[in-house]
Amino acid sequence: MKNWITTSETDNEDLVISSRIRLARNLSKVPFPHKLDQEKGKKVIKLIEDAFYTSDTIREEFKTNYLWEKSENDRKMFLEKHMISKNLLENSNKSAFIINKCETISIMLNEEDHVRIQCITAGLNLEEVYDVSDRIDNILEKNLSYAFDEKLGYLTACPTNLGTGLRASVMLHLPAISLSNQISGLLNALGQVGMTIRGLYGEGSKAIGNVYQISNQVTLGRSEEEIMSNLKALVSQIINEEKLVRDKLMKNSKYELEDKIYRSLGTLRSAVLLNSDECLKLLSYVRLGVEMGIIKDVSKAALNSLLVEIQPANIQNNYEKTLSSRERNYNRAKLVRNKLTETTVK
Amino acid sequence: MKNWITTSETDNEDLVISSRIRLARNLSKVPFPHKLDQEKGKKVIKLIEDAFYTSDTIREEFKTNYLWEKSENDRKMFLEKHMISKNLLENSNKSAFIINKCETISIMLNEEDHVRIQCITAGLNLEEVYDVSDRIDNILEKNLSYAFDEKLGYLTACPTNLGTGLRASVMLHLPAISLSNQISGLLNALGQVGMTIRGLYGEGSKAIGNVYQISNQVTLGRSEEEIMSNLKALVSQIINEEKLVRDKLMKNSKYELEDKIYRSLGTLRSAVLLNSDECLKLLSYVRLGVEMGIIKDVSKAALNSLLVEIQPANIQNNYEKTLSSRERNYNRAKLVRNKLTETTVK
Repeated sequence: MKNWITTSETDNEDLVISSRIRLARNLSKVPFPHKLDQEKGKKVIKLIEDAFYTSDTIREEFKTNYLWEKSENDRKMFLEKHMISKNLLENSNKSAFIINKCETISIMLNEEDHVRIQCITAGLNLEEVYDVSDRIDNILEKNLSYAFDEKLGYLTACPTNLGTGLRASVMLHLPAISLSNQISGLLNALGQVGMTIRGLYGEGSKAIGNVYQISNQVTLGRSEEEIMSNLKALVSQIINEEKLVRDKLMKNSKYELEDKIYRSLGTLRSAVLLNSDECLKLLSYVRLGVEMGIIKDVSKAALNSLLVEIQPANIQNNYEKTLSSRERNYNRAKLVRNKLTETTVK
Repeated sequence: MKNWITTSETDNEDLVISSRIRLARNLSKVPFPHKLDQEKGKKVIKLIEDAFYTSDTIREEFKTNYLWEKSENDRKMFLEKHMISKNLLENSNKSAFIINKCETISIMLNEEDHVRIQCITAGLNLEEVYDVSDRIDNILEKNLSYAFDEKLGYLTACPTNLGTGLRASVMLHLPAISLSNQISGLLNALGQVGMTIRGLYGEGSKAIGNVYQISNQVTLGRSEEEIMSNLKALVSQIINEEKLVRDKLMKNSKYELEDKIYRSLGTLRSAVLLNSDECLKLLSYVRLGVEMGIIKDVSKAALNSLLVEIQPANIQNNYEKTLSSRERNYNRAKLVRNKLTETTVK
């Protein structure tokens, strides 16, 4: 798998930023995490670690981060890198995650469920991430007794995850659909086929920067293969629609579109202060320019990494003293100027 | 005198764009221009031309433009270059102007008065432009009988110009005073000392681009020297105030100020569509950056010429077919990108 943030092999024409599989699992005869106090929570983590670290290869490749040992800023950075979820953060006195070296596999412990296996790769590649998730799942299942019901499948803390416990999701860049105000229509259509659309940081997050996550809402009564092939079909439909709207914009409003794109790049290469919302908005138009072949001297890999690097905790991480929001904006602007090959500001 | 639009010798620290002297004169025993029909108006022009073109040197250096012979767009271009006034344009069936080769001297015929001698030079140099105006005035006076009253001085169509018929004005760039909302205070203060403040295109025009013209309001009962020295003193006071506010901004809001300046340059170097109001606004911040030594790779001469070149009729003048407003915006953006040494858009 390729880390979607750091890979340099992104296809510039691809509108898919990353593909993600998440499996929810629980230990049988152990209360769900929200019923566990700190001591019992830590015991669950120990149990799962023992079941997982069964070979030198695994011990070499993976390590556990215990959230209670981490600083506030480190925790936020994990979230900004999509390595963990908000839920895991909220349980940080009793939660942890096991992560591989290239940060594509994260096994969250004591999130909403005892185990949440999450695999992310760059581009559209659900099969690959599913295969990896499945292998991790098999390692764990060998030594753990999962809460499983013959009729219902895997048992989970929230009924929406019952059954396969699978959520497949694809992160997409949809600026043209957004620009033409068609997102709410898309949202309704997706709901009707058991799918859902979310912002850059999952449930409840805003879709700043025109980045959306499309995923299955329903897990019960459908096989893993069905869920994934439905999602893939849907994603390719959405991509077609996005491309249609782009062509239409290019045909009817070429100058206006190019103006938006070049001004965004000009601002990112010039600004001295940049807040993260504006930055994500401008990065989206630059990405659109790259995807459409209008901008040729910026790589999509640079844009992917900026999606994460410009986040507040990631900015803070480069400095010892705590930055004010104005100082973060100053350092964010500097980072972006450097990354987009500084030409305007000297 | 140096043409303020094309000179390349502008002092980058100087906040004065140009200095201008205008003398209003009328022929005795001839009705004021607004009372003249086309035929009589043309006769007045002939009379003045005969009085002016008295040597080969003059005939070599000057030429008359008869507005009724000019296209609508050419007339607007003269106005945009500050060669003529709106009033002259409105009389274009019976008005003309005599202009020298480097376009620093314009003798408007049948404006509000029969003769309006106007001299403009780059930077702050009222004495020089007054001397030149005075010489032109002497040439005309030798062969014409001016309407003059021993007690009142030169008689003019509008009583505000009675006396010396002199208006001295200085074009200034005051972005910091504007940014800090102190312009209305300045306006009141100026009124109390018989001075007035106007926008880039004189009476009734908006001060877009933070460019203001300060001039004397009163001409009666004051000598030419008094008028000019009062204006000079006032201008140096205003410049001091502007510099104080700039220092304060730099001290309290360095990043914010630099952000505004660099973003403006970035946008001007990137935009694909630019309307003239936005363009003037952005040019003002770039000029501020140049004046403060923040921007080093843009010359004030380029900014001066852009003040005029980006005006609608000047843009239109480069093309055969009539441009739509969108096409003008497109060509304006292209012109500005090229002039500000294109680095962002390829």
